[in-house]
Amino acid sequence: MPELYFEDFKAGDVFDLGTHAMTRERVLSFAREFDPQPFHTDEAAAATSIYGGLIASGWHTCAVFMRLFVDRLLGRCASLGSPGVDELRWLKPVRPGDVLRARYTVLAAEPHPRRADRGTLRSLAEVFNQDGALVMTVRAANLIAKRNPPAA
Amino acid sequence: MPELYFEDFKAGDVFDLGTHAMTRERVLSFAREFDPQPFHTDEAAAATSIYGGLIASGWHTCAVFMRLFVDRLLGRCASLGSPGVDELRWLKPVRPGDVLRARYTVLAAEPHPRRADRGTLRSLAEVFNQDGALVMTVRAANLIAKRNPPAA
Repeated sequence: MPELYFEDFKAGDVFDLGTHAMTRERVLSFAREFDPQPFHTDEAAAATSIYGGLIASGWHTCAVFMRLFVDRLLGRCASLGSPGVDELRWLKPVRPGDVLRARYTVLAAEPHPRRADRGTLRSLAEVFNQDGALVMTVRAANLIAKRNPPAA
Repeated sequence: MPELYFEDFKAGDVFDLGTHAMTRERVLSFAREFDPQPFHTDEAAAATSIYGGLIASGWHTCAVFMRLFVDRLLGRCASLGSPGVDELRWLKPVRPGDVLRARYTVLAAEPHPRRADRGTLRSLAEVFNQDGALVMTVRAANLIAKRNPPAA
């Protein structure tokens, strides 16, 4: 059973989502499956690229953020899925060996305009590396069920 | 060597990126690693959810789109990476067995304001299922090197 419902969130709430270490093996294998550009998949080619070495696919960083979000917060919520992302920025390269930390801030908690049983959390997710540099931001929306929806 | 450079693109160019079949095995394994919500990872829980059955993580759909984009287009380009996504919409559930088709449309080809050796392609990517229903859209940017940059 979920612990957290739409009513439990308000603008300004901030959640630390913990950390994830990016291994060279998984950076390479993710990119080989989903984003086989040389600066993601080939050490030698990456070394001579503008990035100066292997970098993780931005979609890998998104997926890792999602895991942290589900483990630390969304998995405890009455989640009904997401309509999408309003802005996603890859600000700095993520490299093998980086330890990423994510933070989730509620920007707005809006009752759904048509469905009385749910609301939308609008959020800013920030992902930092071990040096405290901001590597990715995601402004997204999540649909969350209400604990006590009004009677139909 | 890349075949395609910034100069080769203009607003209105459309590219068919081909198809990818979403297998139940990979839908489950991707979600178990990156998005372990019950409607992505647990057949029984998914059946009683608002989705009525297993659906793919939206990030899995993004990753699959990226693979089609790299295989059919970006992998032939002088790609310098991406600053991010301006809008991402998950419009309909993607289910195991779905065969996704992607299309990439150039919305604008803009010389970089500061770096004379590259430009930005702004694009709309659309992902359809086997019934022709639009399941995801991504408005993103990609940095592409120029074939003939002006002398410094």
